Amino acid sequence: MTFDVEKNLSAALIGLEKIDMRNMPVPELGPFDVLVNVKVTGICGSDVHFFKHNRILHLEVTEPLVLGHESAGVVVAIGSQVTRVNVNDRVAIEPGVTCRTCEMCKSGQYNLCPHCKFAATPPTHGTLCNYYVHPEDFIFKLPDDISLEEGALVEPLSVGMYAVERANVKPGDVVLVLGAGPVGLLTCAAAKAAGAAQVIIADLIPSRLEFAKTYATDTQLLLDRPEKGEPNFEYARRTSTQIIQKLGQQADTVLDCTGAETCVQMAVLLTKSGGSAVLVGLGATTQTLPVVDITVRQVNVKGVFRYCNVSPVSIVRAYPRAISMLTKGNIDVKPLITHTYPIEKSQEALLHATNGSDGAIKIQVINDQ
Amino acid sequence: MTFDVEKNLSAALIGLEKIDMRNMPVPELGPFDVLVNVKVTGICGSDVHFFKHNRILHLEVTEPLVLGHESAGVVVAIGSQVTRVNVNDRVAIEPGVTCRTCEMCKSGQYNLCPHCKFAATPPTHGTLCNYYVHPEDFIFKLPDDISLEEGALVEPLSVGMYAVERANVKPGDVVLVLGAGPVGLLTCAAAKAAGAAQVIIADLIPSRLEFAKTYATDTQLLLDRPEKGEPNFEYARRTSTQIIQKLGQQADTVLDCTGAETCVQMAVLLTKSGGSAVLVGLGATTQTLPVVDITVRQVNVKGVFRYCNVSPVSIVRAYPRAISMLTKGNIDVKPLITHTYPIEKSQEALLHATNGSDGAIKIQVINDQ
Amino acid sequence: MTFDVEKNLSAALIGLEKIDMRNMPVPELGPFDVLVNVKVTGICGSDVHFFKHNRILHLEVTEPLVLGHESAGVVVAIGSQVTRVNVNDRVAIEPGVTCRTCEMCKSGQYNLCPHCKFAATPPTHGTLCNYYVHPEDFIFKLPDDISLEEGALVEPLSVGMYAVERANVKPGDVVLVLGAGPVGLLTCAAAKAAGAAQVIIADLIPSRLEFAKTYATDTQLLLDRPEKGEPNFEYARRTSTQIIQKLGQQADTVLDCTGAETCVQMAVLLTKSGGSAVLVGLGATTQTLPVVDITVRQVNVKGVFRYCNVSPVSIVRAYPRAISMLTKGNIDVKPLITHTYPIEKSQEALLHATNGSDGAIKIQVINDQ
Amino acid sequence: MTFDVEKNLSAALIGLEKIDMRNMPVPELGPFDVLVNVKVTGICGSDVHFFKHNRILHLEVTEPLVLGHESAGVVVAIGSQVTRVNVNDRVAIEPGVTCRTCEMCKSGQYNLCPHCKFAATPPTHGTLCNYYVHPEDFIFKLPDDISLEEGALVEPLSVGMYAVERANVKPGDVVLVLGAGPVGLLTCAAAKAAGAAQVIIADLIPSRLEFAKTYATDTQLLLDRPEKGEPNFEYARRTSTQIIQKLGQQADTVLDCTGAETCVQMAVLLTKSGGSAVLVGLGATTQTLPVVDITVRQVNVKGVFRYCNVSPVSIVRAYPRAISMLTKGNIDVKPLITHTYPIEKSQEALLHATNGSDGAIKIQVINDQ
Repeated sequence: MTFDVEKNLSAALIGLEKIDMRNMPVPELGPFDVLVNVKVTGICGSDVHFFKHNRILHLEVTEPLVLGHESAGVVVAIGSQVTRVNVNDRVAIEPGVTCRTCEMCKSGQYNLCPHCKFAATPPTHGTLCNYYVHPEDFIFKLPDDISLEEGALVEPLSVGMYAVERANVKPGDVVLVLGAGPVGLLTCAAAKAAGAAQVIIADLIPSRLEFAKTYATDTQLLLDRPEKGEPNFEYARRTSTQIIQKLGQQADTVLDCTGAETCVQMAVLLTKSGGSAVLVGLGATTQTLPVVDITVRQVNVKGVFRYCNVSPVSIVRAYPRAISMLTKGNIDVKPLITHTYPIEKSQEALLHATNGSDGAIKIQVINDQ
Repeated sequence: MTFDVEKNLSAALIGLEKIDMRNMPVPELGPFDVLVNVKVTGICGSDVHFFKHNRILHLEVTEPLVLGHESAGVVVAIGSQVTRVNVNDRVAIEPGVTCRTCEMCKSGQYNLCPHCKFAATPPTHGTLCNYYVHPEDFIFKLPDDISLEEGALVEPLSVGMYAVERANVKPGDVVLVLGAGPVGLLTCAAAKAAGAAQVIIADLIPSRLEFAKTYATDTQLLLDRPEKGEPNFEYARRTSTQIIQKLGQQADTVLDCTGAETCVQMAVLLTKSGGSAVLVGLGATTQTLPVVDITVRQVNVKGVFRYCNVSPVSIVRAYPRAISMLTKGNIDVKPLITHTYPIEKSQEALLHATNGSDGAIKIQVINDQ
Repeated sequence: MTFDVEKNLSAALIGLEKIDMRNMPVPELGPFDVLVNVKVTGICGSDVHFFKHNRILHLEVTEPLVLGHESAGVVVAIGSQVTRVNVNDRVAIEPGVTCRTCEMCKSGQYNLCPHCKFAATPPTHGTLCNYYVHPEDFIFKLPDDISLEEGALVEPLSVGMYAVERANVKPGDVVLVLGAGPVGLLTCAAAKAAGAAQVIIADLIPSRLEFAKTYATDTQLLLDRPEKGEPNFEYARRTSTQIIQKLGQQADTVLDCTGAETCVQMAVLLTKSGGSAVLVGLGATTQTLPVVDITVRQVNVKGVFRYCNVSPVSIVRAYPRAISMLTKGNIDVKPLITHTYPIEKSQEALLHATNGSDGAIKIQVINDQ
Repeated sequence: MTFDVEKNLSAALIGLEKIDMRNMPVPELGPFDVLVNVKVTGICGSDVHFFKHNRILHLEVTEPLVLGHESAGVVVAIGSQVTRVNVNDRVAIEPGVTCRTCEMCKSGQYNLCPHCKFAATPPTHGTLCNYYVHPEDFIFKLPDDISLEEGALVEPLSVGMYAVERANVKPGDVVLVLGAGPVGLLTCAAAKAAGAAQVIIADLIPSRLEFAKTYATDTQLLLDRPEKGEPNFEYARRTSTQIIQKLGQQADTVLDCTGAETCVQMAVLLTKSGGSAVLVGLGATTQTLPVVDITVRQVNVKGVFRYCNVSPVSIVRAYPRAISMLTKGNIDVKPLITHTYPIEKSQEALLHATNGSDGAIKIQVINDQ
């Protein structure tokens, strides 16, 4: 395979809603590194947030930053010590590179490594480019029957599978997911694949629920918006009561994929005593929660930050597990890909993802070079 | 509904391979009890063992004992305090009645209650009869779309689901099951439903593997018998090496559903370091195990005795979970029912189950009275 | 032993801060019941709350209600089926009687049983009386070397031990407890006994910290009160930052024993990533939490409601475990008993507990009859 | 600090029971490495086994091999990227260096890393030498109040603490340890520190039990030897029955620190239903176990291979946890050090450990250079 790392077309964020397609230098290939010719990159909510606001929490984009972290591609070169992948392998990229030596890494919770360098999180460049250098322990070979488009969805699928793991979803469980975006839908698919007997999804937007009818859910609940002047918690309590009446019960676990305060409140209220309310979406820094349900009903509140292994219950890592689910057909991610753009039109892809109210679920950027 | 508890035709074991169909008295209905008109009862390996040997371990049949514990039926009367089921409800019977007050019961491990009275375990009569009195907390209503035949399979399905729970099977796992009888097959189905990416079954009998090809498994392995004079452990090691070569890896978990020493040995050898070898089948009291794999590779060896809740990971009980899996179509047990007999022919049903080498999987006894 | 159940002097709450000592009827002794001559009863925060407000959350005292649930006494009669205790046994009373048949009871989480009848929770009378009838599975014999005063402290000690269990405290951990009242101090003692290497306690009241210096803690932190007009979360963040600087780290787990919003916020902020913030105290129904620490740092927020077994990690129940700790000297509860009153002065005891700012830790009521 | 890596006096095993003190080359210091001047090294059972047999399982000593892996010393040089320790720091060495990138390492079970290089395990040299080069993520600073002799005991203490962790020892538990050697005694100390209410130790040798009377145990059981011709399992059953009678119960967990078949059998028989029998000692490759207790009573059989973190229940690593226990006085390891030798007399130290029946517990080798 011939390739020219001098031509590394990259989608660099250079201002509010402003992408510049520019040639970026490719880092040197270390002995344990792999050079990937990135072929497909999905646009994630965090890309959109950086695009729109140039920051997330305390992470500010002050220098041009290449976006993208949901990527698959083809290996074009490997470092001298690499043994797990070869040139021409089709691979998915796990975008966070951890330090491997801190107590979080040593204890199997590497998603909490404070030294992690995560693609498209300043100052680490993302994968929306031609060539990406990445260590082999965060590169995973794709089986022949998995397309690169599917491979680029392994990243958000890993979030969904890890969320379901954190939620302790068990065969026979009733699982409720708030938010029918890509992560919410993949969480539904992961819950189904883990044996949930009933997967219920709720959202405010009818078109999203229309899509959900065809994907990994048994029941779709259209949420009303709060009434004018209705305080958040009153809305959450009122809506939760209605949902419990409709379902005839609370859920074994509720996973919030929105981050909205009312949804986080509902997640707690809608969870059975002793069950888990799992916060997957990222919202306001502080939120008002029904603490009495946490103490008196022992609803466990757990967050999800990216994904990692699920030791000690399983020693298989997040990415290979997700890839296995695709290979064996337990989960089908292809229906989520609703739109694609060529890499040159990254700006348009991000604008679409930012403004899209046209039924877009997952927008992917394709690189043919 | 009219019924006559004076006519309680029951299949009583009265000697070696000898059933007497006789009228047995029906116990008095207590305030928390339910009277079930039993309609379907599956024959289990333990029924066969009692039939053939009149004992299992230290449990000896010294008085006539009604067999059967895999049953479903229709409620014909309820005690004064019963609130969870009604007359005419179609129900599955969870056949072990625990004391509810010992530390095992209080800690959620009620399958280990030393005071448990289990149907068809001397001196407690079984369910292969017209009328059975049972407390309501061990009676579970069947949804309309579940047949009584399926309801009678909730008991062995609960074994499979609990085994999979003990094994910590996770989405994406590679699961190997030894023994393709009813429990082995239901364990495969439970593993699949819990998200196993690859379910492999192994057995000595080709016809069983033929059936398995159509049921809940991805790979079927025909085991050779030991060579003449080959010690058990040499056979187990040799065979395990062959299987690992064929699969390209060890399994995340191996569940032995045979109880045979060579299979228990293989279960340990075939499990990945840090994984679990789960013993579902009951075999010889003492067996020689590859202890070095337990210590140096930390293969966890766990047994399965019946089933119970799976706290704290889920507060839903075994039976409702199993019933949910049937209702939602996650698991289909119907193909396992290969033969049926009327209750009057219980002797023939048991003989068939004892001698059957004709591809019989699950034999059920039907009661039309 | 002679006794007269007709003389059942009881401390009945009949209005705001108003106790009436009256003769109350003793319920009939059922076959599995034990009649206890109550000798010692500790005053708990919930007794005080009912005394002061005649309600807790939705639980309102509308009829005279006997208070008290931290009790030990001597068995004076047993039902016909009782086997675990005998007349003259000195016993501790576990005050919540569960239904034993719901899914919470069956799964080992009996503290969440919705049918639980808990002493001194309307409409169930409490134990601040001469004679109390209670089922034997919630009665625990005290060893000879444990006094009845200590026996009456098994109840709050069980809260502390269960909290430490929920917090997953491990040998070597750094544990921070907010609130130096009886439950806070017993939580410290339980953490120490579970191997915590450093136990830190924080409170606003210097005299409480003075006591803590002599009891089960390594470090005592005096908290400042919020500055005038300082919002709760700003105070919590500022104070947490100061504490982290002082300690040089966050704690592996923080247990809040106050219920105050600022403390709950601090519990989350002061917990290491991946650790648990455990809410033991009961406060306002809704509270504002630093949700971003739950999602991004995966701080698990867990509540504690009373206590139960700790399956599957241990099948020993809360009460026998707590009693063992006392017997073996792992935990010493005697220093906590700072004041005693005769039962006739229950009103004074409750007033003292309500208004006490004199260094009272645990006030107990003694019954010599 | 001046030092001369050219003078690296090392205790090299060169044949059966034959140590040669020779100057060995010191490996180059990499950027993340630390050069430790080893001061104290304990003799472990595996050193003795290599000394006596020149092999353990498949690990054969074919080239001269420096022994020793329980060491503490002083840092004399650090690599360019080292940040966690400094020259002159007194440190304990965690002797296994893992690959940090395989699925075992990534999932927090790094003790199962198949690529681990462990000191004094061929072909990796041990620490019984002047100078040892080791990566900083396996070096732990000792607090000022911990001596180097204690620091050299952090390694076997970590085994005991990890064993207790695997056993899920909880406050209030009854714990039985088989074998009163150093690991058995440290396991007792770790169980005590984790809150065990009663720690029972059993051994065949009266002098060991005499020592145990003064160290971390409540009850000492002298085991009889098997009668002439008595089969192992009959002995195990007979002895277990006697012990259960004496104790009045089974233990919540039993930890075997001998590896002997009869003890492994007894470990299973002496464990309560639902509890764990933990195999810490390494014995014969295959052993006959009471499998029926594993299946019918669900006694979990778990092995212990070295130690690692204990995610997800605690994110603190084994070594810092062990060091904290020493610092805070929860565990005292000093009484275990019964004999010391200068490094020049390593041969004598190993002979003593091999033949010692004089009450030796832990023999340490001191290096004053």
